[in-house]
Amino acid sequence: MAISTRLTQRFGIEHPIINAPMAFAAGGELAAAVSAAGGLGLIGGGYGDPAWVEAQFDRAGNTPVGCGFIGWSLAENPGLLDRVLARAPRAIFLSFETPDRLAATVRDAGVPLIHQVQTVEDARRAIDQGADVIVAQGAEAGGHGEKRATMTLVPEVADLLAANAPDTLLCAAGGIADGRGVAASLMLGADGVVVGSRLWASNEAQVHPNMHRAAIDASGDATIRSQVMDIVRGKLWPERFTARVLRNGFTDEFHGREDTLRDQGDRLGPAWTQAWADGDVSLANTFVGEATGLIRGIEPAGKIVADMIEQAEGLLTRHR
Amino acid sequence: MAISTRLTQRFGIEHPIINAPMAFAAGGELAAAVSAAGGLGLIGGGYGDPAWVEAQFDRAGNTPVGCGFIGWSLAENPGLLDRVLARAPRAIFLSFETPDRLAATVRDAGVPLIHQVQTVEDARRAIDQGADVIVAQGAEAGGHGEKRATMTLVPEVADLLAANAPDTLLCAAGGIADGRGVAASLMLGADGVVVGSRLWASNEAQVHPNMHRAAIDASGDATIRSQVMDIVRGKLWPERFTARVLRNGFTDEFHGREDTLRDQGDRLGPAWTQAWADGDVSLANTFVGEATGLIRGIEPAGKIVADMIEQAEGLLTRHR
Repeated sequence: MAISTRLTQRFGIEHPIINAPMAFAAGGELAAAVSAAGGLGLIGGGYGDPAWVEAQFDRAGNTPVGCGFIGWSLAENPGLLDRVLARAPRAIFLSFETPDRLAATVRDAGVPLIHQVQTVEDARRAIDQGADVIVAQGAEAGGHGEKRATMTLVPEVADLLAANAPDTLLCAAGGIADGRGVAASLMLGADGVVVGSRLWASNEAQVHPNMHRAAIDASGDATIRSQVMDIVRGKLWPERFTARVLRNGFTDEFHGREDTLRDQGDRLGPAWTQAWADGDVSLANTFVGEATGLIRGIEPAGKIVADMIEQAEGLLTRHR
Repeated sequence: MAISTRLTQRFGIEHPIINAPMAFAAGGELAAAVSAAGGLGLIGGGYGDPAWVEAQFDRAGNTPVGCGFIGWSLAENPGLLDRVLARAPRAIFLSFETPDRLAATVRDAGVPLIHQVQTVEDARRAIDQGADVIVAQGAEAGGHGEKRATMTLVPEVADLLAANAPDTLLCAAGGIADGRGVAASLMLGADGVVVGSRLWASNEAQVHPNMHRAAIDASGDATIRSQVMDIVRGKLWPERFTARVLRNGFTDEFHGREDTLRDQGDRLGPAWTQAWADGDVSLANTFVGEATGLIRGIEPAGKIVADMIEQAEGLLTRHR
């Protein structure tokens, strides 16, 4: 079974599925598994640790994968982009306030540029930066994002592209965890999807088992968008971006009391970071989207991709 | 052209489209126009002015329509439900913390109960209350709502119903403004859709022309969820519910400064209400969802319904 779209044709892949380049979780094994399953696998460049990123490319081996970055963080570490471009990545995925010069560097290298946006205004800038693919990311996504919803952002960006950049492809991100989400995204005008939480919940993702278990048990009702995880870790995200996580005692205490948290940061920061490493989900937050309510177990990434496509194709053909 | 679903079969309607019973905007003309077009038309019972609601049923004439209510507000005015039930409504639509006894009154009258929910937890309660149709409303919706997104709430509630109440129907609400949204909702597991903003932007809706114009000009980026419109009007909504509107000088000034607004309410309330009546969109807010970015003009409701179905059917058959 296969679903052919402009994305599969342009990239020469079998399935219109890209894994979100999730910081920490999307290492070389996950990226390689997604590519091997017929999708487009991406390493999560995260906050730009060059040694970690290089190691993930080594782990991916000969399987072609790309790499994603947090735009504002990459801007503080420009040498990293050159090192990754030297690896001949399948694509570079940029999100969260990417400077023009970084987009230009990717284009000059002849590497496909995938640009994730959170608003229609962002999408206009991404067109100007020469993106080959624009990813419209809704707020239901896990991890960092903003306010717009997938259901409205995708068609509004589709209309913008149709009028201004008809050769630029469009992918949907945020809340897509099974074949229903894939089929819905295609109906909204997307050429493919970016899948975060569902592939985070895979055997190949680098995630503490306690966090996997917490996500399986949670409804999407149990998530929240907040800045407190960035404040406690000292990550200097632009004000507009928050991260969606599972609520816990930490968010219950400090969300809405950010100034209090800032005052206690020196004490709490190391404890939160240690809890993250230890899988103590009562303090450290599990980074997962509203789609956590659709996740019932941890499976191999290749099976997840195959099941999503099989379900989507069944839905798309049922309504003939 | 027609799209047959469990909703069209159960209600004997042609198209799986229900108009949101929007307070003030959804009067008898809009409800009747939607029913006449083959959908299920609903009068917006709003904050429960009996004379206004009765007048809307009169305006709908012999066309069968239903009526929707704000649950917590209806609870303060129980005589109204009996008066509406005496009109033999096609359905009663309840949302926003509906007491069990009101749901029971609808069921006892033999009138179909449509129950709108904002979380999976709400959906469990709606099942217990014997809802015939559950509407899963995402936060991208205009007017009142909560936090979950349509893209994830619909499939998660679909799974809940499949396991616990397979005969209960499911509709999607929030962000559905054209055939793409209809088709996407069916893929997500819905039996039909509830359309707010797009039908608010119709000739039959009771909306000031200035607000229609503001919505046509706006991107979905220009909306915000806030409580300040309720604070200034003295509407005592439960804390969890906010309303999505077009941002303007009023929300820019007071969103996040709710306590300051409460202190100034006596002065600002009458001015805001007068601005609403006058269509002064610099002070009074335009109640519309993120789908405002998909609205290009004001059209007859019947044409809007027909176009949505035609586009949806084209998309559903394109992917055979």
